[in-house]
Amino acid sequence: MTEATYTVEGMTCAHCVGAVKEEVGELAGVDAVEVDLETGAVKVTSEQPLPREAVAGAVTEAGYRLVA
Amino acid sequence: MTEATYTVEGMTCAHCVGAVKEEVGELAGVDAVEVDLETGAVKVTSEQPLPREAVAGAVTEAGYRLVA
Repeated sequence: MTEATYTVEGMTCAHCVGAVKEEVGELAGVDAVEVDLETGAVKVTSEQPLPREAVAGAVTEAGYRLVA
Repeated sequence: MTEATYTVEGMTCAHCVGAVKEEVGELAGVDAVEVDLETGAVKVTSEQPLPREAVAGAVTEAGYRLVA
């Protein structure tokens, strides 16, 4: 099990948090996604380390932007 | 057919707009709901004038606040 924390820009409300959690949570091997709306921090727990582009793609799919 | 415009506080993104449109749109007799995210203006077209408390209740249900 591995954890990585990213920063997502553009989330403004609980719906945004839900959209990011849903898209990132659908990536293969992801067990948990925690989001801090205030800071934009997205902590992803997964079986294996995830390719950054996979996470970025899911965030884009949700309508936001991975910035760190 | 009648139109009334309200002001809703707290909407920050397109998801918020969607939530308000959905809840207000479910009120009996409502034909159309238009929302301006920038101003918080919610224009409701309905068969008959709606009780203000019905609209306020739907907005609250969506998670926002009717302020005018």
